[in-house]
Amino acid sequence: MRLQPALIRELEALPALEPGHVWLVGAGPGNPAHLSLLALAALGQADAVLHDALVDPAILALARSGAERIAIGKRGGKPSTAQADIIAQMIALAHAGKRVLRLKGGDPFIFGRGGEEALALAANKVPFRIVPGLTSGLAASATALIPLTLRGINQVVVLATGHGTDRAEGVDWRTLARLGQPIVLYMAMGNLKMITEALIEGGMPAGTPAAALASATLRDERTVLATLGTLVEAAQRSRIEAPAVIVIGKVVETRTKLLALLPALEKNSS
Amino acid sequence: MRLQPALIRELEALPALEPGHVWLVGAGPGNPAHLSLLALAALGQADAVLHDALVDPAILALARSGAERIAIGKRGGKPSTAQADIIAQMIALAHAGKRVLRLKGGDPFIFGRGGEEALALAANKVPFRIVPGLTSGLAASATALIPLTLRGINQVVVLATGHGTDRAEGVDWRTLARLGQPIVLYMAMGNLKMITEALIEGGMPAGTPAAALASATLRDERTVLATLGTLVEAAQRSRIEAPAVIVIGKVVETRTKLLALLPALEKNSS
Repeated sequence: MRLQPALIRELEALPALEPGHVWLVGAGPGNPAHLSLLALAALGQADAVLHDALVDPAILALARSGAERIAIGKRGGKPSTAQADIIAQMIALAHAGKRVLRLKGGDPFIFGRGGEEALALAANKVPFRIVPGLTSGLAASATALIPLTLRGINQVVVLATGHGTDRAEGVDWRTLARLGQPIVLYMAMGNLKMITEALIEGGMPAGTPAAALASATLRDERTVLATLGTLVEAAQRSRIEAPAVIVIGKVVETRTKLLALLPALEKNSS
Repeated sequence: MRLQPALIRELEALPALEPGHVWLVGAGPGNPAHLSLLALAALGQADAVLHDALVDPAILALARSGAERIAIGKRGGKPSTAQADIIAQMIALAHAGKRVLRLKGGDPFIFGRGGEEALALAANKVPFRIVPGLTSGLAASATALIPLTLRGINQVVVLATGHGTDRAEGVDWRTLARLGQPIVLYMAMGNLKMITEALIEGGMPAGTPAAALASATLRDERTVLATLGTLVEAAQRSRIEAPAVIVIGKVVETRTKLLALLPALEKNSS
């Protein structure tokens, strides 16, 4: 890609990540091609990059060569840094005058605990900026050729997390089923049996199209199509593991329609 | 921003927009700083850019200097190109061997009619690629310091369009009210009175925090805070016009909390 003069001016006009400041940055779904210019600017300026374990190495490779890289994210089942420690570390680095980049998969404000981190930074008088990223649920759907809205089909999309659904603020799956709109699930693999059963009990037809999208936008991307009733078994058979995005709704059929019309699209989708 | 060798390699590895192909690209919320590398690659390679009227001129300035720019979007109330004409034009340009970039505000697959356009391209054997962009509802919330999910508050976010809610597939506002989860509204200014009244009738408290976010990420960005019951009047008083993003839910309070803790955040949010 040739760099146009207008692009060089844009890059030069991007804001500075100042010493003692923290940027909470969304790294997007995985592939560096989906990084925003602002996220790139953060990577190019940071003294310290505190990143989730799931952020792709190809993205971390774009950090300033002298930057300290600190892996702090969580991985299902493996030991992880407690949220309080992550926050304490960010604040200590900022108070020491570092340019701090807190790099999260997807978007920091969509199931990313960015709100908690922002409140802790503000309470400790650490200036920060939120840099939104492509949230994995929407990016995975797009690259899997599943438009989450279709005229004549739906005017609502629901984003929900399947993690911690046993807690008091847990999701009301039965009301979601009654709503009858497409649902995008994050972190749902562990509770997928319970969730799909609750949706069917709530009145969503077991034949509703559903998809499991693993490693979206990355080389090992995989898409499994099923129905609400067969999704758990289909995902197990294809050994789909966390993290994966689940899409439930009639819109999932669009992928099948598109590939039937133009089979060559398959290799083009990431 | 200095260009790291790793970044130059990434830029060189971005896929080619080939003659006769169409890329359906999300331009994000407005500010070019939120463009993805893949969107930039599309701008740098296109022979023809068919863009929504709302795409910011600073983004169009990043298109290849020889590219033909064709404004085809819709603006509330003003004459616009019919969807069928847009599709016919894309197909004609692709069949003529052009590298075609269809550039939409936000994300092509979230209330952007990208699904319809993809189906029409596939039916006409025109190869295409979907390039997701930051959808305006999520990007506007992030830059307004409103995390759409907060641990202990919510595990669901609802995205809905307020446009055409009188049609058969119209939104079931009363069930959404019962769900009691944050709602992000797109294209809702025209029907805002009807929508807020339906949510209150459905049982959502009139005191629920609400915000209207206009021109998010752009220089004339404005944020109006109110409640579900006072939002219509507050938006009118502040002369908030379409397009604007509406956020309804307890999460909106986070903005007020963050600014109370650290007033300097206000100037830092876009």
